[in-house]
Amino acid sequence: MSVSALLKSRVRRPSMLSKLAKAEELIDLFPNGAYVGWSGFTGVGYPKKVPTALADHVEKNNLQGQLKYALFVGASAGAETENRWANLNMIERRSPHQVGKAIASGINNDRIRFFDKHLSMFPTDLVYGWYTKDKPNNKLDVVIVEATAITEDGGIIPGASVGASPELIQMADKIIIEVNTQMPSFEGLHDITLTDLPPRRKPYLIMAPEDRIGTPHIPVDPEKVVAIVESNSPDQTQPVTPEDEASKAIASNLIEFLQHEVDHGRLPKSLLPIQSGIGNIANAVVGGLAHGKQFHNLKVWTEVLQDSFLDLFDSGHLDFATATSIRLSPDGFKRFYDNWERYAGKLLLRSQQVSNNPEIIKRLGVIGMNTPVEVDMYAHANSTCVMGSRMLNGIGGSADFLRSSKYSIMHTPSVRPTKTDPTGVSCIVPMCTHVDQTEHDLDVIVTEQGLADVRGLSPRERARVIIKKCAHPDYQPILTDYLDRAEHYCLKKGWGHEPHLLWQSFKMHQNLDQKGTMKIDSWE
Amino acid sequence: MSVSALLKSRVRRPSMLSKLAKAEELIDLFPNGAYVGWSGFTGVGYPKKVPTALADHVEKNNLQGQLKYALFVGASAGAETENRWANLNMIERRSPHQVGKAIASGINNDRIRFFDKHLSMFPTDLVYGWYTKDKPNNKLDVVIVEATAITEDGGIIPGASVGASPELIQMADKIIIEVNTQMPSFEGLHDITLTDLPPRRKPYLIMAPEDRIGTPHIPVDPEKVVAIVESNSPDQTQPVTPEDEASKAIASNLIEFLQHEVDHGRLPKSLLPIQSGIGNIANAVVGGLAHGKQFHNLKVWTEVLQDSFLDLFDSGHLDFATATSIRLSPDGFKRFYDNWERYAGKLLLRSQQVSNNPEIIKRLGVIGMNTPVEVDMYAHANSTCVMGSRMLNGIGGSADFLRSSKYSIMHTPSVRPTKTDPTGVSCIVPMCTHVDQTEHDLDVIVTEQGLADVRGLSPRERARVIIKKCAHPDYQPILTDYLDRAEHYCLKKGWGHEPHLLWQSFKMHQNLDQKGTMKIDSWE
Repeated sequence: MSVSALLKSRVRRPSMLSKLAKAEELIDLFPNGAYVGWSGFTGVGYPKKVPTALADHVEKNNLQGQLKYALFVGASAGAETENRWANLNMIERRSPHQVGKAIASGINNDRIRFFDKHLSMFPTDLVYGWYTKDKPNNKLDVVIVEATAITEDGGIIPGASVGASPELIQMADKIIIEVNTQMPSFEGLHDITLTDLPPRRKPYLIMAPEDRIGTPHIPVDPEKVVAIVESNSPDQTQPVTPEDEASKAIASNLIEFLQHEVDHGRLPKSLLPIQSGIGNIANAVVGGLAHGKQFHNLKVWTEVLQDSFLDLFDSGHLDFATATSIRLSPDGFKRFYDNWERYAGKLLLRSQQVSNNPEIIKRLGVIGMNTPVEVDMYAHANSTCVMGSRMLNGIGGSADFLRSSKYSIMHTPSVRPTKTDPTGVSCIVPMCTHVDQTEHDLDVIVTEQGLADVRGLSPRERARVIIKKCAHPDYQPILTDYLDRAEHYCLKKGWGHEPHLLWQSFKMHQNLDQKGTMKIDSWE
Repeated sequence: MSVSALLKSRVRRPSMLSKLAKAEELIDLFPNGAYVGWSGFTGVGYPKKVPTALADHVEKNNLQGQLKYALFVGASAGAETENRWANLNMIERRSPHQVGKAIASGINNDRIRFFDKHLSMFPTDLVYGWYTKDKPNNKLDVVIVEATAITEDGGIIPGASVGASPELIQMADKIIIEVNTQMPSFEGLHDITLTDLPPRRKPYLIMAPEDRIGTPHIPVDPEKVVAIVESNSPDQTQPVTPEDEASKAIASNLIEFLQHEVDHGRLPKSLLPIQSGIGNIANAVVGGLAHGKQFHNLKVWTEVLQDSFLDLFDSGHLDFATATSIRLSPDGFKRFYDNWERYAGKLLLRSQQVSNNPEIIKRLGVIGMNTPVEVDMYAHANSTCVMGSRMLNGIGGSADFLRSSKYSIMHTPSVRPTKTDPTGVSCIVPMCTHVDQTEHDLDVIVTEQGLADVRGLSPRERARVIIKKCAHPDYQPILTDYLDRAEHYCLKKGWGHEPHLLWQSFKMHQNLDQKGTMKIDSWE
């Protein structure tokens, strides 16, 4: 094949260029039942050409359900690849996280077996052999990784995410590299470490968000590389979800709390490294920090950087940010590429094993903030399964951060609308229908109504303050009634530590399912 | 006061001896509402004289309910002190763990406000100021620590536990030291570190169980020491719970699994550091390792050492063990003291912040094993609240280990007896009534029936294997029926990831409450 000058400039190891192939020529590397790994995290840095060629092959030859794979991606890949695979019934098994209607539908309708794991642990468990223990060779058959350049040593320079690529490559039998020449080379923006096995694991010697402990590229065994494919498609990302009034009110409550903690000497004036989840509340919080004037010299230790972090850089209040993925909107990526020099020196992308590592999160004293499906009055949270059963996206990094952060904060609107009732779903419930974060882990619950600081409180104290500060007025009487009755019932029995009406605890959910609102008539 | 020669030999800093006092003289240091810290962990190393003198004072003067304290102990203290305080209504607030009938009763009957926290995190949160944030001076008013010696520098040599003593002392306004001359000096057996605040926290540079990173004593600001009290009471511990047939069968299943992992190259022949909980199953597992011949050069990284570890040392298979507490039976302590030289060089006691630290547990690749209240078919576990409401002891270190271990193992008998039915309680249930360990954390569930290896399995795959391998035959049809019905119901709705019959999920528990057995007639 002829090699373009652009590709030559990106692939600095000449022997790699001899492996140049077209995606369509690689179909045979993917027999039915193969274990496949992809780079990518939150919809950036994922391979585009080969997954699309495979999907085209299945579609053209009506092979739906006949070519199925165990698919491992650090978190979610791009919708046009992963979702298309799900639509074509090409995914037999999936771990550890996903985003996309077709995938969620496959998981909830008996087509895809989904194993939902903490994002910090997935790469470790992969290297432990947990996911390949039933295979003769204990390897992932093919791993496809997107690169923005290849070094003289054959090392991979990833794009806008690192994710689980280092460990996927460690565990690969064969590797395909898609070199994306459409986006700039991200060289210098990464800090890469591999995962050792105990008893030979070592400390992560990171004492501040800007510390580097690895190499700027992912080391690759060149003999495992079976093909190089040129790619010229951008990461297909979505526009920013706009802030709404509720998310602005939540952000304002949160920033007031942080100021309170500074005033009482429990936080430095420049706070501690911030972790912020994904979505409009997270955007509002980061936006609030950018527009406010009270906090300066901030640092960010997080999983994913969104557009709002560019605003925070531009405000002059943010000194450094590190994550495993920088997932910007199309406009955001243009702004990032156009002002590369302004941002690049203040940014570092690491593997998800490092960005989400409890060791480092605890050491740095991170301020961790995430949005749940629902929180209960005793401060457990559901991050994954609606009605206890229907999978949304997976636990992601929420528990990595909320277990180990100095401040473990859950932010949520107090209610969500249903088709018939604008406040039909209360996000504060008596008992979570699925528990991903326990009462032993959360410090603060915040809604647009107010903020509940539950540090050091007993369960019954917690319940009173969460109902009072966080629940929507429509639900305060219902929740208080539950708590009063549960206290009465359980104290009579000598079970009063964390009182529940166990046989009625999901009655609000049942009402929602049957009548379209959680507003029950009574607990009788 | 006159100073005994024995006390002089233990207190090597002369100025400390000038502070010698009798416990009865210190009552005024404890006004109603004071925040009090005690040393102690799992019933060893706790102060005996001063708490007893305070209890005597309350009892003699009928001050029940008029002298109440916020009490902070690393884990449980001794029954004759803590339980007596609970009986005399002297505990207003308690964190983070407890053992004792009177305390549990106070917690479950509205007298004691209990905040139940991971044992690794309690000391950190204490130093963050979470527990004292509503006090003007942000300090614990008085901390009473048992020592077996005091160094020239005024440092404390603890006894059979370290627990949270370093952090309690860091946060103390006043310190009372009880020097116990009845037991030998434990000097040389400890490795002590204090807790720094972020952004100045540092890595714990422990790469193997025998690594030392601290000092052999707890550093103390001598100006804070307000009194020294001589104590001559031993730790009041209980005899060993004998192994039963079920626990032996569980141990045998577990040891077979470990051998399987060695055979498949996922574990070294000498295994990886072992963590074992408390109780007869843990004793049977450690006993099984001692009596078996397959594993040599073992090491232990755990929270508490029980008598069975002495057998493991004596078997010649154990090279080193470290923990935060060595809680032996009276016979076990005699054996330990009589053979000090045999054991001392192979033992190290650390603070609970270190013994239970996720950073180190993950790095070492610990094999973590604990017993729950109940496990559900999707591999969540309840470690704390019976019927979702009644507190037993607290989460302890279970989640510290199960979240971060290489192997996260829950072992439990498949059933427990009720008054009317010898298999009236199934420890495998459809849905846990309280979740402390999530499905994202557990790798293996084992009962006397068998072992379920759930690594990499989707929830429905997990449920089938847990019911088949772990549930008691009496409950297999009931649990399978639930799962079949839940699958049918949820798949119809497109909620099929983790199927539940949400409105009936606690029906087995309801039946237990009302009819004394979990054996329901049907799920209709």
